This record gives sequence, structure tokens and C-alpha cells, in this order.
Amino acid sequence: MDALTAEHLDREASLRRRYGAAAPSVGPWNETITRLLEHRSVRAYRADPVPAGTLETLIAAAQSAATSSNMQWWSAIAVTDPSTKKALAEIAGGQKHIEQCPLFIAWVADMARNQRISEEQKADFECMPWLETFMVACIDVALAAQNAVVAAESLGLSTVYIGAMRNDPVRVAGLLGLPQRSFVVFGLCVGYAMAEAAGEVKPRLPQGIVLHREHYAVGREAALRSPYDAEMAVFSQRHELQAATWTQRVLNRLGPIRSMNGRERMRTALATLGFEIR
Amino acid sequence: MDALTAEHLDREASLRRRYGAAAPSVGPWNETITRLLEHRSVRAYRADPVPAGTLETLIAAAQSAATSSNMQWWSAIAVTDPSTKKALAEIAGGQKHIEQCPLFIAWVADMARNQRISEEQKADFECMPWLETFMVACIDVALAAQNAVVAAESLGLSTVYIGAMRNDPVRVAGLLGLPQRSFVVFGLCVGYAMAEAAGEVKPRLPQGIVLHREHYAVGREAALRSPYDAEMAVFSQRHELQAATWTQRVLNRLGPIRSMNGRERMRTALATLGFEIR
Repeated sequence: MDALTAEHLDREASLRRRYGAAAPSVGPWNETITRLLEHRSVRAYRADPVPAGTLETLIAAAQSAATSSNMQWWSAIAVTDPSTKKALAEIAGGQKHIEQCPLFIAWVADMARNQRISEEQKADFECMPWLETFMVACIDVALAAQNAVVAAESLGLSTVYIGAMRNDPVRVAGLLGLPQRSFVVFGLCVGYAMAEAAGEVKPRLPQGIVLHREHYAVGREAALRSPYDAEMAVFSQRHELQAATWTQRVLNRLGPIRSMNGRERMRTALATLGFEIR
Repeated sequence: MDALTAEHLDREASLRRRYGAAAPSVGPWNETITRLLEHRSVRAYRADPVPAGTLETLIAAAQSAATSSNMQWWSAIAVTDPSTKKALAEIAGGQKHIEQCPLFIAWVADMARNQRISEEQKADFECMPWLETFMVACIDVALAAQNAVVAAESLGLSTVYIGAMRNDPVRVAGLLGLPQRSFVVFGLCVGYAMAEAAGEVKPRLPQGIVLHREHYAVGREAALRSPYDAEMAVFSQRHELQAATWTQRVLNRLGPIRSMNGRERMRTALATLGFEIR
């Protein structure tokens, strides 16, 4: 087998890990694509610290992402203090990897910084109190964080997003000393994966369901979901996850309000934190 | 000068393009980091189509991003039809690059797909009508799109996000045939940059303003903003942008409500599109 064939087979295997039998054929490709496709969330970390300068590199990558009108609506808080990480892990329902990881980054939708300019310059900012502006802040922070994730993984580090910071945004804000009009959208554990926890790529919906051409089309969605359900059932069994199929997981996650862990109170929490979201 | 020194100087230059004089020192690094730091938004494209299979590769990268509870709250619509692109460009206030680029991807916060499972399975989804769930959909789509941007740039393509799809979400939804409970969060132009439009890396706020340690601290923010304002004034002059300093740009962008281009009506538009955001 020549090198080109081997490379092609590697790429096919990469797509198959992500999509199972529904994988598309290999298109334009390079090492970056391989790495993006190999992403997995890691929930167990070695104690080793991240190398000096890593945080600054991740933030430089994050700041290099696009930001709407260059408003740069976000801040990052690097947390390494064990007692803070312990408290954050409790808020997240006991996610031990938050305590374990050497570096935890809290990603903040920060409307406080630009608001300070309003006060300093004695200029009323009419554009602040709207759903649109709030959305832009959340989107900006997500684009930035994803660049940091890509950078971290390229350096051999692992990550996992912690959405459960939103279980209690007010308490998280208190712990991190956030000013009004800022809140932690999600956290991110960063560190070296324990060998046994490096995990497996999680299969996703086939492109036939997610990607539309020219217009949205439900098309063969139900038919395409069945093999994905089967794929996820096998994955779930291997990983001792509760829900067998993906459809069942959707039913469990979105059916009963209790699965929101109190996050249905987000609007109230954000109002407490000074956000107007008209 | 040996190769290692040259490499180090390249990395320093890369940070200096992003931060000016406030650049942090070079930390852990590789080719991926260089590429992330070199990101720039491109607003003029050659007519050349993207190579066959590119779209599928970008979507595979996008689907490899983390997604909250694997709910996969998004769809992508690939638009190449000139008349649709023309209409979208008009909605975006005449952004010609939408017509020009060979591939336009509309990134959809798609709560319709999971809602179809609720109907098919005759199960009430109590978790749907909340601000939290809406936010998660927007965040999921942003993480995915950013992976597609990283993939595109690694393949030598250029991109620019089009937030102005939100100038009229209802009309955009109509053009793309979106079902209720879905909307285009932003678009993305993909293509080959015209040589003269490859542009320049835009300086960002110094890390001393954006990155906090253990707790949020306003610290030397005002002092650090002055050199950034000076940096952006030079950049603006070179690019014939209106606002001189960054502070002035923030004042222009967030002061008068007219700079929202009608997006203060987002809540009403989303209600029309079937979103409940309690």
C-alpha cells in the first residue's frame, strides 16, 4: 500500500468515526481537518499543569476569531484556585473534572466593559438593552472559545465545555466577582487527558439531515435518523450511557422540565445580573 | 539567523499584528496557532468555485464541534443560487460579497428538527420554550460555524460572517424556506479572496483587558485602552474606516438606536418565526 492510499484510508476512517456508515466521501483535506474531526470532550484529567504561556496562546487564538463590529463582547477568567474550582464543580452538579483540570476558563458574555465606556464618556448606549445585543455577546464568546478549543487540541491538550455554569449564573458571578451586565456563558476545562479517558469520537447526525441545499428540506430525515439511532445505541452501550438511541436521548433531555436543572429560570437570573433583554 | 530564530521572529510578528505593541510573549505554538492568529474577514471574492467536496468537509468539521447534550441544535443551508444570494445581499444592506462569493452558508438555529421528534413521538417537550434553550441553540450554531471557518481557512479559503442576516430574520426565513422555530443566526461567505482584498489582521484589545486571573478585575483597563485606541486609529486611517479610535467606534455603534438597523425588533421577529423565549 503506498502512502497516498494509506492517507486516504486514514481520512475515510476519520469520517467513519464521526458518521458511521453514513460518512460522506473524502473531500479536500489536511492535518487541521483531521484534528477537528478527531475532537472529543474529555472528563478526566492528569494533574500536570499546562505549560507556561499556554493560556496566553489560547486567548490570542480566541481573540483572533471574528467579533461582531469589533465590539469584543467577552472576557475570559482563568481559574486555577482549588477552592474556586471545587465550588464551581458543585454548582455543575458534582463534575469532578472541573476540580481535576489544571486550568478552568470561565467564558464571560461581558456587556459591562462596553457599558463602562458609556459611563466614562457620558453617552447613552441605546443599543444595549435588546435581545439582539445579548445574542451577539453570547455568539461572540462562543466563536472565541471555539478557537481556544481548536488551539488547545492542536497543542495536545484536551477540553470539555461546562454548560452547567448556567445552573446558577448568579452564584457563579458571585464566586468570580463579575460586575453587573456580565455572566459566565459556559466554562471550559483544559488539561491533559488521563489515558483511559481519552474517549471516543461521538457520532453525529448524517449530513443528509443537517446540511440543506438552497432551501431547508425535511426530506428523508426520519429515514436517515434510524441508522443514526442504531449507531448511537451501539455507542451508548459501549459507554454505559443511559439512553440507547439518539431519539430516546432527545426525549429524555427535552421532555421533562426537571432535566433543565433550574435553567428555565435563566431570564430571572440574568435580570438579577443586570441584563435587560427586551 | 538560524531556522529556530526565524520561526520565533515569525511568531512574534504574528502576535504583533494582532496586538500591536501590547503583544504577549511567544508561548507554546504550532502551525494551527499561526493560522488562527492570521484570521481576517474578507469582503471581496474571486468567481472561482470552491473545489468539489469542500462543503462536505466544512460541515464535517462543524459537526465535530461540541454540542450541548448532543442535541445538535443547528442546520446549515448552502446557497449558490445567484438570485437568492442577491436577495440576501439586499437584506444585508447591499453587501456585494454575498453575491460575489461562490458559496454562502446560512447557519440556522434549528429548534424545528427536535420539535418534529416531539410531534412524531407524541411527547410534550417541556424544555423548549425557554431563553436557556434558545441560547444553547445559538451557541451550538456558533461553535459549529467557527470550526467551519477554521477548516476553510486551513484549506486556503477566506470567509466573512454576515450578522446582517438578522436585519430581517423573517424575510431570510422566507427566502430559504425555513420551518417555524428556526432562523438564520448569521451567514458566512466562503471563497477565494481577491488578491487586493486579502486585507490585514485587525488589532484586538490587549490581553490585560480581556483576560482575568481567578476573579474579574477592571484593573488598568482605561490605561490599557489608550494605546489600543491609538493602534486602531492608525489601522482605521490605513483602511479608510470612519471611526478613528476603538472607543469612538464603540460610541458610534452602541450609542444611537439607528445603528441596529432594525434589529431591536428581534424579539418580535423571533415570535413571528414561532420561537417562545420565556
